[in-house]
Amino acid sequence: MTKENLKGFILALLSSGFIGASFIIKKKGLRKAAAASGVRAGVGGYSYLLEPLWWIGMITMIVGEIANFVAYAFAPAVLVTPLGALSIIVSAVLAHFILKERLHKLGMLGCVMCIVGSVIIVIHAPQEHPITSVQEIWSMATQPAFLLYVGSVIVLVFILVFLFAPRCGHSNVLVFTGICSLMGSLSVMSVKALGTSIKLSFEGKNQLIYAETWFFMMVVAVSVITQMNYLNKALDTFNTAIVSPIYYVMFTTLTILASVIMFKDWDGQSGGTIVSEICGFIVVLSGTILLHVTKDFERISSFKGSSAPVSPSLSTRLCSGNGELLLKYNNEEDVPSSEEVCLSRHELY
Amino acid sequence: MTKENLKGFILALLSSGFIGASFIIKKKGLRKAAAASGVRAGVGGYSYLLEPLWWIGMITMIVGEIANFVAYAFAPAVLVTPLGALSIIVSAVLAHFILKERLHKLGMLGCVMCIVGSVIIVIHAPQEHPITSVQEIWSMATQPAFLLYVGSVIVLVFILVFLFAPRCGHSNVLVFTGICSLMGSLSVMSVKALGTSIKLSFEGKNQLIYAETWFFMMVVAVSVITQMNYLNKALDTFNTAIVSPIYYVMFTTLTILASVIMFKDWDGQSGGTIVSEICGFIVVLSGTILLHVTKDFERISSFKGSSAPVSPSLSTRLCSGNGELLLKYNNEEDVPSSEEVCLSRHELY
Repeated sequence: MTKENLKGFILALLSSGFIGASFIIKKKGLRKAAAASGVRAGVGGYSYLLEPLWWIGMITMIVGEIANFVAYAFAPAVLVTPLGALSIIVSAVLAHFILKERLHKLGMLGCVMCIVGSVIIVIHAPQEHPITSVQEIWSMATQPAFLLYVGSVIVLVFILVFLFAPRCGHSNVLVFTGICSLMGSLSVMSVKALGTSIKLSFEGKNQLIYAETWFFMMVVAVSVITQMNYLNKALDTFNTAIVSPIYYVMFTTLTILASVIMFKDWDGQSGGTIVSEICGFIVVLSGTILLHVTKDFERISSFKGSSAPVSPSLSTRLCSGNGELLLKYNNEEDVPSSEEVCLSRHELY
Repeated sequence: MTKENLKGFILALLSSGFIGASFIIKKKGLRKAAAASGVRAGVGGYSYLLEPLWWIGMITMIVGEIANFVAYAFAPAVLVTPLGALSIIVSAVLAHFILKERLHKLGMLGCVMCIVGSVIIVIHAPQEHPITSVQEIWSMATQPAFLLYVGSVIVLVFILVFLFAPRCGHSNVLVFTGICSLMGSLSVMSVKALGTSIKLSFEGKNQLIYAETWFFMMVVAVSVITQMNYLNKALDTFNTAIVSPIYYVMFTTLTILASVIMFKDWDGQSGGTIVSEICGFIVVLSGTILLHVTKDFERISSFKGSSAPVSPSLSTRLCSGNGELLLKYNNEEDVPSSEEVCLSRHELY
């Protein structure tokens, strides 16, 4: 592995660690806030904003996102993006030990697969051609093949936003996740361009004097905001356990595709290496699916078991107003946050 | 991939296809025999011996084993042995379509993992040094490192057979599976030696005139018989769903270890390639575990659901005499064989 790839790899690992831990810290904060005020975030409480732990979680997340941003400046997107799945492992393992949300045995197998798949991806990651100026990135971004990709993405996003979202956005999970995956691939490419420019500026070659740098900054702002907006819509409408794996596979696939077109990552790599990378990606994806599916096992099986003698750890009640079913755990310290317990109607049927 | 490796790879694929299909054909035969005579093999019936379908299954299995044997003559054990897991996929997929034993969605994910892991193994498989005579194999088998391996295996097998088997062979699944995995690694090495000698003889260089060839033949006979004997004991005592993955991982690991010592498969391979091979093996293993674990999901969840309103497709009754619990499926065409429905006490508690 080259020195630059190694830096990017370590930054991506740190990023996954911080982002994974941030979920746990935020949830601890939500629980503390709910215990203090008696009103949960899921039913409209905002007391968590006064809870320092929640803010520590927020800061951890921002640090993780910055590490991720810097990682793109050093290593190819084909390496950094799939490693994002490791944050799921970090949060699953920490949840197991800190929040006592017991990990299913198959979930552990999912963790092993995510790690093994990441190892395969890291071993076969391509080496990047060193970039010396923002103009070089600009010429890569304006090559016909990549312009065609950007054009197709924009057309598809417009079709999805204006034609499909109003009609079936709330019944088909692929609409919102599709929009944020398509925009996500543009986010990563522009983040990589901006990150490289800033890195070059720090190295003494000031790139802020060029209009291209500011253009990339604008693209980052627009694409990240669109992506976040539709990701929130997807998570609001559908359950995390369904959205996360679909989003992961679409986002990662499109980002790899965009990176391969723009940065020609696969040029000079053998067929075997490329196939291995794809296999590693499929392994990580399968691990992610396994983790997410088995996260629901206990909940669903407990739920199904309600016609049998009532489990002492579970009682059910209906949210007033929004028609969602809340499962309330009787565990003394467990005050779950909204995204964990609000099963939308889509999941139940 | 070299021409020799390709031949071995195709033979290993064919072997997995035949062995996987043989399970289904034999089971079809068992069902037909049970339907005709009214007595199932699981409760002592032998009517399946008069059923042609059962014999076709038996022949398919033998053809598969021969293909496997020949595969070892062409490709390294590091490539051929892990591909054995593909027979599990073939039988799971055929069972889904022919026997209507519905595959769980996670079982399908397990199949995908087995295939992806196999692709990774095949891509990184080492190239074999061409062997020209049985004496060359003999010198490899008598090198100090491999003699040390064989010595350790024999000592361990004796300890397991005479010390552990009488005491905890029927309570600890690792005893019988350990014996057949240890002997299995010797089986594969001697099968490979014998296969290569026969291949050389067919190519015009008669190896049957050398005592070494006959010695390897004797080792094949002794090790295969011991291995089969203890595999049957393991399957008799514990459930297939527990024995299969444990046996697969121990047998494959020990065989790879033996092959790496004897044939120096990893000499001249880069660290990345070796790590990729190991990752591929872990992926196949995870897929196998997933397939076997989820095979039990429906059965166990139906069983657990018995305190709820009785499922119309399931009734339970106790086998007379041997204390095993039989689950009888009411499905009109489903007459399961003994290994499918007799859950031993070990599995239930």
